[in-house]
Amino acid sequence: MYEKEYLMLPGPTPVPPRVLRALSEPLINHRGPSFKKLIEDVTEGIRYVYQTKHDVLILPASGTGGMEASIVNFLSPGDKVLALSIGAFGDRYATIAKNYGCIVDKVDFEWGTAIDLDVVKAQLDADVNQEYKAILVTHNETSTGVCNDLEGLGNIRGDHPALLLVDSVSGLGVMDVRPDEWGLDVVVTAAQKGFMIPPGLAFISVSPKAWEAYAESKAPKFYWDLGSAKKFLEKGQTPVTPALPQYTGLREALKIFQEKGMDYMFAKQLYLRDMTRAAVKALGLKPLAEDAISSAAVTAVWAPDGIEAKAINKKMREEYNVVLAGGQKQLENKIFRIGHLGYVQHLDILATIGALEMCLQELGYPVVLGQGTKAVQEVIMSRKGII
Amino acid sequence: MYEKEYLMLPGPTPVPPRVLRALSEPLINHRGPSFKKLIEDVTEGIRYVYQTKHDVLILPASGTGGMEASIVNFLSPGDKVLALSIGAFGDRYATIAKNYGCIVDKVDFEWGTAIDLDVVKAQLDADVNQEYKAILVTHNETSTGVCNDLEGLGNIRGDHPALLLVDSVSGLGVMDVRPDEWGLDVVVTAAQKGFMIPPGLAFISVSPKAWEAYAESKAPKFYWDLGSAKKFLEKGQTPVTPALPQYTGLREALKIFQEKGMDYMFAKQLYLRDMTRAAVKALGLKPLAEDAISSAAVTAVWAPDGIEAKAINKKMREEYNVVLAGGQKQLENKIFRIGHLGYVQHLDILATIGALEMCLQELGYPVVLGQGTKAVQEVIMSRKGII
Repeated sequence: MYEKEYLMLPGPTPVPPRVLRALSEPLINHRGPSFKKLIEDVTEGIRYVYQTKHDVLILPASGTGGMEASIVNFLSPGDKVLALSIGAFGDRYATIAKNYGCIVDKVDFEWGTAIDLDVVKAQLDADVNQEYKAILVTHNETSTGVCNDLEGLGNIRGDHPALLLVDSVSGLGVMDVRPDEWGLDVVVTAAQKGFMIPPGLAFISVSPKAWEAYAESKAPKFYWDLGSAKKFLEKGQTPVTPALPQYTGLREALKIFQEKGMDYMFAKQLYLRDMTRAAVKALGLKPLAEDAISSAAVTAVWAPDGIEAKAINKKMREEYNVVLAGGQKQLENKIFRIGHLGYVQHLDILATIGALEMCLQELGYPVVLGQGTKAVQEVIMSRKGII
Repeated sequence: MYEKEYLMLPGPTPVPPRVLRALSEPLINHRGPSFKKLIEDVTEGIRYVYQTKHDVLILPASGTGGMEASIVNFLSPGDKVLALSIGAFGDRYATIAKNYGCIVDKVDFEWGTAIDLDVVKAQLDADVNQEYKAILVTHNETSTGVCNDLEGLGNIRGDHPALLLVDSVSGLGVMDVRPDEWGLDVVVTAAQKGFMIPPGLAFISVSPKAWEAYAESKAPKFYWDLGSAKKFLEKGQTPVTPALPQYTGLREALKIFQEKGMDYMFAKQLYLRDMTRAAVKALGLKPLAEDAISSAAVTAVWAPDGIEAKAINKKMREEYNVVLAGGQKQLENKIFRIGHLGYVQHLDILATIGALEMCLQELGYPVVLGQGTKAVQEVIMSRKGII
């Protein structure tokens, strides 16, 4: 394709050219000394981005594979778990636990809202015999652009023995997460989101308490066995053949995190979020999530009355090569989603909003051209020198 | 690294430069029209290499993930299966089935030999109530360089209702496999072997009879659910985010298969095997496998008396950058293995044998330099014009 594409998705994200180039290194022996150095380096780099001293393991899988690993390694059939869902990925997490024989108490919150910590507290208080073995929670709900308060959830869990299992597939590396301080026992993420590399790897952190649960787990497993992954990592290997291009890409991407620092990376993401939301509001559109719970990775926006969200996305893609995401399940055709994580910069947002203005105008929505882009520019200029 | 490395492993294999370049294409939306075209094209290309009209699905996993998928989709806890093992990967297949609750009748054949079809026949004849739900078999046993007779096994299975589940991770695309004609219900392979692309994808073919078993299967699953993969493929998608670089690499690699034709690809592999074996024998060394059952993907060789296999591999790697594989489990330090699949050509074998001669001589084994390379040259010259 000759035309430049703007991949404004909540994953896969655009990837820096230096990372794309690093994918093409000649293959190496995954049981040899070069790979040992590679896996040791990237494991340390991932822990830097994770801001954790817990073990971190790399799985040859998508984020969903990491979620499955977080269930089958720490739980057993018949275990009672509390699943908190605010959207499609919260539903998925509950389904995986159910498929592996867990007894799932699922609490659903309205799509577009965050978990209500008071409701969670009441649920845990009602569990007087402390039967819950785990709490499953989505950090950043990709389907709605809502971010849950993991620190608050960790506080509410308190001394309850349940493990806190976190799907942060689209959150980690994008927003500040502190597994050790907040008591997050297991945190799953994936390569193609905050890490700025192509899909093919999942990462999972494991607290000492989670390792104790691992020893008790009776769920069937082979490919997802984290004990095996840990044992192999100790000799600089993986149990099965790893996706080598993603490893060399990851090494390059991690250099960027280390050059820029996590403070910069998190601040940049908030900045991209803020300019996207400012523009959307300036156009008279309504984001699905309130400001206080809004994701730094993706912004979901209600399509204006009388205009189908799919028509907006189709026009954006066909006329301007700007790729947005749509709504899932009950939000299908009602919202569109602008991803702003990975290798996305401020002028990409400006371009996206400019294209959106033109599409909306042609679809019959009243837009003064420049109305949204001006809002983007104002955020850019107000933070000049900070980012 | 400046020095050129000879990756003579049974996977990951060297990858053609045009495939390495294809890994670095900009990321695309895995729910959009470009990916739909991509997955449709590569699925057709894989079926060409598989020589099958069965469904073929692509999984975001290593070959072991494909093996796990072949168990959890077609079997249930408590199912009786016959596992035929001739080495480390046969053992792995049996272990996966056991971990998922199958009752595994395991028949072990001596490492370095193939399955004995008479023994299998007796085993099936003894199963008068036809309790076996599946027969698990390794096509090409990577740990020993032995290839099993799948056509013969298919004939012996005959009308027994057991599914024939085949791990052809290092065999498919290297040696002639005919799932439809030979009655192979499920055939698993992986990207980094015969397909000449980097690791990160597994492929699995599913016969109509296997789909019937899928409908009955009660093993827990989410990530490996092939019914879900089939449903998504019908709309040109995958259930979870796919490893996109491997898909674009695969598209390029499949063009090579189509340009050259399968007859050429299979003949080339036999030619590489024959020159490797001729050279090894000319040096007075003994291959682990007899000629009749020898693999076209990898040749395992006994280390000469008094010389450790690890010392040979170490010297080959450190002094000549030739990477060989070692022995696994009971063969550790007793054999070395020369991989000759993927992007390997005749002069790579010549160079490898030349380096091996120098290493063996320095390790005290009596070698006249040129003794092995001459044998390679003779095979090359005898087949000139055919390959």
